[in-house]
Amino acid sequence: MAPRIPVSVLGATGVVGQRFVARLAQHPWFELAGLAASERSAGKRYADACSWRLAGEPYAGVGERVLSEADPSALATPLVFSALDADVARELEPAFAQRGALVFSNASAFRMERDVPLLVPEVNPDHLELVTAQRRARGWKGAILCNPNCTATVLVMALAPLHRAFGVEAVLMASMQAASGAGWPGVPSLDILGNVIPFVRTEEEKVEAETCKMLGELAGAEVRNASCQVSALCNRVAVIDGHTEAVSVRLRGNPRPEDVREVLESWRPEPQQRGLPSAPARPLVLHSAPDRPQPRLDAERDGGMPVHVGRVRPCSVLGIKLTILGNNTERGAAGGSVLNAELARARGLF
Amino acid sequence: MAPRIPVSVLGATGVVGQRFVARLAQHPWFELAGLAASERSAGKRYADACSWRLAGEPYAGVGERVLSEADPSALATPLVFSALDADVARELEPAFAQRGALVFSNASAFRMERDVPLLVPEVNPDHLELVTAQRRARGWKGAILCNPNCTATVLVMALAPLHRAFGVEAVLMASMQAASGAGWPGVPSLDILGNVIPFVRTEEEKVEAETCKMLGELAGAEVRNASCQVSALCNRVAVIDGHTEAVSVRLRGNPRPEDVREVLESWRPEPQQRGLPSAPARPLVLHSAPDRPQPRLDAERDGGMPVHVGRVRPCSVLGIKLTILGNNTERGAAGGSVLNAELARARGLF
Amino acid sequence: MAPRIPVSVLGATGVVGQRFVARLAQHPWFELAGLAASERSAGKRYADACSWRLAGEPYAGVGERVLSEADPSALATPLVFSALDADVARELEPAFAQRGALVFSNASAFRMERDVPLLVPEVNPDHLELVTAQRRARGWKGAILCNPNCTATVLVMALAPLHRAFGVEAVLMASMQAASGAGWPGVPSLDILGNVIPFVRTEEEKVEAETCKMLGELAGAEVRNASCQVSALCNRVAVIDGHTEAVSVRLRGNPRPEDVREVLESWRPEPQQRGLPSAPARPLVLHSAPDRPQPRLDAERDGGMPVHVGRVRPCSVLGIKLTILGNNTERGAAGGSVLNAELARARGLF
Amino acid sequence: MAPRIPVSVLGATGVVGQRFVARLAQHPWFELAGLAASERSAGKRYADACSWRLAGEPYAGVGERVLSEADPSALATPLVFSALDADVARELEPAFAQRGALVFSNASAFRMERDVPLLVPEVNPDHLELVTAQRRARGWKGAILCNPNCTATVLVMALAPLHRAFGVEAVLMASMQAASGAGWPGVPSLDILGNVIPFVRTEEEKVEAETCKMLGELAGAEVRNASCQVSALCNRVAVIDGHTEAVSVRLRGNPRPEDVREVLESWRPEPQQRGLPSAPARPLVLHSAPDRPQPRLDAERDGGMPVHVGRVRPCSVLGIKLTILGNNTERGAAGGSVLNAELARARGLF
Repeated sequence: MAPRIPVSVLGATGVVGQRFVARLAQHPWFELAGLAASERSAGKRYADACSWRLAGEPYAGVGERVLSEADPSALATPLVFSALDADVARELEPAFAQRGALVFSNASAFRMERDVPLLVPEVNPDHLELVTAQRRARGWKGAILCNPNCTATVLVMALAPLHRAFGVEAVLMASMQAASGAGWPGVPSLDILGNVIPFVRTEEEKVEAETCKMLGELAGAEVRNASCQVSALCNRVAVIDGHTEAVSVRLRGNPRPEDVREVLESWRPEPQQRGLPSAPARPLVLHSAPDRPQPRLDAERDGGMPVHVGRVRPCSVLGIKLTILGNNTERGAAGGSVLNAELARARGLF
Repeated sequence: MAPRIPVSVLGATGVVGQRFVARLAQHPWFELAGLAASERSAGKRYADACSWRLAGEPYAGVGERVLSEADPSALATPLVFSALDADVARELEPAFAQRGALVFSNASAFRMERDVPLLVPEVNPDHLELVTAQRRARGWKGAILCNPNCTATVLVMALAPLHRAFGVEAVLMASMQAASGAGWPGVPSLDILGNVIPFVRTEEEKVEAETCKMLGELAGAEVRNASCQVSALCNRVAVIDGHTEAVSVRLRGNPRPEDVREVLESWRPEPQQRGLPSAPARPLVLHSAPDRPQPRLDAERDGGMPVHVGRVRPCSVLGIKLTILGNNTERGAAGGSVLNAELARARGLF
Repeated sequence: MAPRIPVSVLGATGVVGQRFVARLAQHPWFELAGLAASERSAGKRYADACSWRLAGEPYAGVGERVLSEADPSALATPLVFSALDADVARELEPAFAQRGALVFSNASAFRMERDVPLLVPEVNPDHLELVTAQRRARGWKGAILCNPNCTATVLVMALAPLHRAFGVEAVLMASMQAASGAGWPGVPSLDILGNVIPFVRTEEEKVEAETCKMLGELAGAEVRNASCQVSALCNRVAVIDGHTEAVSVRLRGNPRPEDVREVLESWRPEPQQRGLPSAPARPLVLHSAPDRPQPRLDAERDGGMPVHVGRVRPCSVLGIKLTILGNNTERGAAGGSVLNAELARARGLF
Repeated sequence: MAPRIPVSVLGATGVVGQRFVARLAQHPWFELAGLAASERSAGKRYADACSWRLAGEPYAGVGERVLSEADPSALATPLVFSALDADVARELEPAFAQRGALVFSNASAFRMERDVPLLVPEVNPDHLELVTAQRRARGWKGAILCNPNCTATVLVMALAPLHRAFGVEAVLMASMQAASGAGWPGVPSLDILGNVIPFVRTEEEKVEAETCKMLGELAGAEVRNASCQVSALCNRVAVIDGHTEAVSVRLRGNPRPEDVREVLESWRPEPQQRGLPSAPARPLVLHSAPDRPQPRLDAERDGGMPVHVGRVRPCSVLGIKLTILGNNTERGAAGGSVLNAELARARGLF
């Protein structure tokens, strides 16, 4: 067995950081070498600095590790996973990339830059090639590779095979998003207990822009966005993990629901073909029960990596409607980012 | 002051029945003369037969009343409010109507019958005239008058002024519905705590059909349905009262959001003009905060009778998107039905 | 009618501050003259600075008012209600008292000072007399008068009549406290959704100390604490408003449950005798249903001012057990403080 | 490897039955041979008859199995696990025992019979010997062996080592119980969302009686109950799985909190010594964080089999107070019953 590749996690104490730590503490290819947090936490034991929010083994068994500052000279691992907030990421991630690190980032800071791949390995593995243009343009030895917004990730996983098979013309997506999407402390309990908040700041814009970029085609040194119309209506509900999306879609040629189900069910993209360690056996789990998928019952299955689809049925306005569910902090954040790194390695980027 | 008109409530012990009782116990025009429940409960004190689920004064102060059977010979009031289940309603409501009662029904049993008015007083007061045709066709002295499904009620309140002003061509509505919509015991707590159920049995069909009937025009002895396309995606969330609806709409002429707001805000239909006792001062409350309306904060305002609208904004697919909220057991059930009776009296039906 | 007395609210934007504002905006004796908040908010409109968390009329209709700084020279009303955090209160409340204001404080800062009355008007109205000693000792023209911790308030309301009738020897109280007790943003939703937190910082100590002070007897210029043992086990649950307390108590003479109920039910202390405007008709509401009181159904009744008692039954360890419920932000905070002011006026303190 | 012993599950479709099925579908010693449910469900596929409420693999992979009736002639396995309701259990369990089966029952029907062992393997493994007396008295080849009420199980796990080390004199226990304790559909969501119900029918009596039986000593053919006083105050909260208990205890000799912690932490009873397959590595997990244990974070750890203890501290009334948490449907039901069967086999009962 090849020696494992040392990796660091930036922003290790947050909700997504914790998912990164739990996942990388047991990864077959990567070795969790560095844990970084804000200046205030650096020097503390992970168990002391972190308000662990995951069920199961607290601190994923690495509570004794001492946190570093998020400083590229101190954390010289070839791979870096970033769970930083956007404004911090904007400053720090380039510093790591310049030093030679491949930065797999969950932050929104660079997602829409033309030379930065916005990757979901099942959806647009070819976009990895933007790294070459990025290095040339920025003079970096390393690079920044982003995973999309959690809500966009869940949506694009179901749209991608439909786009390949039919062509997606228009999408209306109403989300019911989990509280963990806002991190910790995040959403105050007084705001969400027994309630719905019909607003998630900047979320609709992100979903709309990122989806079109991911469904786009690589054209030389950039991505030509898909021309479909995407409209998002984002809501927060009293759920811990798992974003549910009520989706209507207009597909070219107006396929029947059974054809749509067939395409979704038989999809077997690159990560599954390559058997990447974090790839779920099936990227999409199709449900036949009329009341599924549900976040409490489905979001944590198979490490939170598959996306769940149910209720594929006719829509009198756009043609097809369906329910989609995915784990926002795994598939939509930490797990998605780790899968990006696995794809990059399988394709020989490092 | 005119003497108050005696009324009865059928199905008085359920969640909607309790709302009827609370509302009618203090009504300026009506006097709560009879309370009926299932055979099993008849003869018991209301307080003993009813698992009271409303905050505030238990049993609305009428806990000592004795329940009757839902039998038209025993309950001979000129007005009857029905909170019966659909299958029971199908049998009992005609018996009351035949005996001469005006039955204001919250049940779904007769809503889509051609000669039965499906009424929201702000939306389609003219449909009240179907009663004449109904009486002729069925040989009844009384009549059945329905209020729509709770989710449809909330939706149509916002669509009606837009339909008059512009014309509604297509509507996509994703609901986040409260648990009270399923009655008591209704939704098991194991199903909905920290969860979303992306399914409400028969709800989507009801919303789609009833909305088109209500927006339709009276043509002689029947209603010609509106020709708009309505597609509903119904979900249950962990909320007690208040249905939230994420809506996209295509309007004729593609008006701007500010024009849509203006139309919604200035709407002043018949119940408000007449000052009916249960009519809210304004039928639609427009919110400017980006994260409103919210069920916990807004559903109980003004007796749960106004419908709340927020986040009117452009939609890249259908033109306009917005959030709508209404109280499903008041405006969407008991309060709506009482308002129908007030309209009927104001228009001289009794 | 006498002119209304001008009052100010310090900390007007928080959860308790909002309850003060809503209550004082319509008070028959007091006129809401000043609203103060932190330096950061001063100068802003109340509606802009405040994240309004109460159902009903937003901003209690005073959203247009401009916030002042909490400065005794700017806010020269004879009465001040304080919803400040303890550390800010420790500094600011004496400044107001020195200037001559009667400060009715919900903060914990001065509650256990020997010359500060810790008042619940039904429980220990005589303790108001400590004001004389306080003014003498501190050389103030005004004074500080505290209401107790919310959990202690609810508990002492049920203990007080038992202490007078029998003598309380020992109390074990396990609380299930609402999220609003921690203010806003307060408890993160990720911590409490579908969960119990068996810890509320410094709460057990407060309940134990404050209860003994309130049940104590005035002896000259100070209060001699009651000698009973009080042990608290405090927990946070997923409830918005209303603290539920599971209580066991050892009473002198081992009275039977029916005797205990009788004492609780017939209690008619000073605020009810005087008919103070914020006093509920009955200070304790006794429930006979085996599953009551419940926070969702009972906490908001009668303005949240009565305390609810149910399930009075034998306890094999201490003699009697019972369930107590009270509204933590009304009776346990803003409403309690306003009632203190009403008592002070009725007794001629101003 | 020895061949696995065929076992059946009675009441397989309920919430506890599902836990039995999930656990036995992968058990190293037992083979899930029969699944039984009510007459109405018999003959159906498990997936069709069962509303699966557990996260993870639906139907534990045995959704295709066909349900039998709960009839001892049809289900002739030597071991039977019963998740029946008490009234059905009272009739059916003896029929299975008479036919020769060892019935490991989660039902309350026979728990307090003098010749029926009420077993928690860590607590009172010797009580297994009651089986001899039971067979003699009833003329059965098989036997009934009960696990206790879920709330009592969690409590007795923490009390047992303290009883051995010091002697338990008195216990006050206030529970915050999960909704799953009432099965499915069980607690209506309208009753528990954002609420506390201060009542769980017959629960307090069960906890009080069963705890004393389990802490009692075997004396010939029966158990002499422990003489301690146990008083329970039971409450339902909005939690899916995991009962939290706020406990005060009077121990002989008044040990210090550190001594109590030491006893709890070092406890290593028979199931752990024998290494039974379902025994958790440590029967009690001691927490040092001030706000733990918590149901959402701790209830599912290690298959839900350990009991969690935190906040051991002085109590001014009884001496020691602490927080206890256990998984009510695993340790408190299915897992506890399976562990009983493992103990019985390890001790050679079959």
